[in-house]
Amino acid sequence: MLQIWALDNIGEITQGVDLADVVISALDQPLQAGDIVVVTSKIVSKAEGRTRVANDREAAITEETVRVVATRTSETGHTTRIVQSRLGIIAAAAGVDASNTPDGTILLLPEDPDASARRLAASLRERLGVPLGVIITDTLGRAWREGQTDQAIGAAGVHVFDDLRGSVDAEGRPLVVTMPCVADELASATDLVKGKTSRKPVAIVRGRADLVGSLDLPGARSIVRPPERDMFHTGSAEAYAEGFDAGLKAASGDA
Amino acid sequence: MLQIWALDNIGEITQGVDLADVVISALDQPLQAGDIVVVTSKIVSKAEGRTRVANDREAAITEETVRVVATRTSETGHTTRIVQSRLGIIAAAAGVDASNTPDGTILLLPEDPDASARRLAASLRERLGVPLGVIITDTLGRAWREGQTDQAIGAAGVHVFDDLRGSVDAEGRPLVVTMPCVADELASATDLVKGKTSRKPVAIVRGRADLVGSLDLPGARSIVRPPERDMFHTGSAEAYAEGFDAGLKAASGDA
Repeated sequence: MLQIWALDNIGEITQGVDLADVVISALDQPLQAGDIVVVTSKIVSKAEGRTRVANDREAAITEETVRVVATRTSETGHTTRIVQSRLGIIAAAAGVDASNTPDGTILLLPEDPDASARRLAASLRERLGVPLGVIITDTLGRAWREGQTDQAIGAAGVHVFDDLRGSVDAEGRPLVVTMPCVADELASATDLVKGKTSRKPVAIVRGRADLVGSLDLPGARSIVRPPERDMFHTGSAEAYAEGFDAGLKAASGDA
Repeated sequence: MLQIWALDNIGEITQGVDLADVVISALDQPLQAGDIVVVTSKIVSKAEGRTRVANDREAAITEETVRVVATRTSETGHTTRIVQSRLGIIAAAAGVDASNTPDGTILLLPEDPDASARRLAASLRERLGVPLGVIITDTLGRAWREGQTDQAIGAAGVHVFDDLRGSVDAEGRPLVVTMPCVADELASATDLVKGKTSRKPVAIVRGRADLVGSLDLPGARSIVRPPERDMFHTGSAEAYAEGFDAGLKAASGDA
């Protein structure tokens, strides 16, 4: 049985707040060994002072962007920029967020979400005396499918993949390529109790203690697919345009 | 509190089996109004006789494919075909599956997973006398991120999106583009209790009765992003190659 619940009574988070204090104060029951604490990146960013003034939004997106993956302008003139951020994550507007922030402000993603997760996990483990995992989430769109799901952008003390490579299925055949991304599945599961409109940025997952391990396990950065393995590294229209230019040049002998 | 558990004692599923019988026989406690029954597509396919002989695998993939999205051949000579299936879903090998099937056989996805979900939901509602939702899942890879997560490919009696458009955030500002795909989040959540190597193809989610509604709600087909909204409709290399050819032709006056 998996049990998932959100903590009530998490107040407004301000810069410099100790998130371990916040989580521990809001607990409605003692955490147990193997519990996983799932936190939205929003409160991590707020605690880390990643707030900027809203007028700097475009500059902030540019600052966070390593590479533009795809852009599209809608009929209403709204431009969507899908970019790869310095965290490796591909997301609209580099994860720069203007919802649930004080008026006139925007929020960047945490500087290093895996490091933030490690600090929080270490502090919670030390103060509560039990091994716990921590996942930091963001709400991300995806290719091919409408809507968003919550995904893991930071992780510590928890296996991000349930690595079945080397395992066999019920018929005894090797499961060669199956590697469930349990960190993303945990992030998505907790979105079902956290909601977007209510202020419930912290949830607990109980029942997969087998996924909790050393604080040195690979973080969520390991979920980012490296470019050489990514068949959707560039938007279709952008890749076509690049190819078209190259074809023109090749034909004219400039290539 | 969200509670998620897998049903034990689901035996091998054969063609013609009534899945409502299977679920009801395996229940370890009465289902409650608003429970959501999440079933892997594998057992739906088996019950529907979607088994083929393994030698026909390539032909089966071709039969299920509407459009090739991207292909890549690894250094070891293994070719990955990412295709759009007749269900609209973009997936490796059109969802044709050779794991957890009897030796020498493969399994296609259900003919119409939303219809399968509707039949199962209607039968369970009638026999158990409570409103329930049904989701049918498949294990899908994704762009940009390593590993797979379980996603919804069929749904009935349950909202597939928690539509927050028109809602406001905690600061009172409109949440214009946020539309969590709760069906995919439910699918991912149940993968955490179903596992891949054990035979636990059915899970129950209790605690989001607000998502359960009419059997006429849009199914999982509505999650598929239409081509005109899909910025990753074609693999980057394929789009580049198309553009290159078009550029060559344009330069030579053939265009």
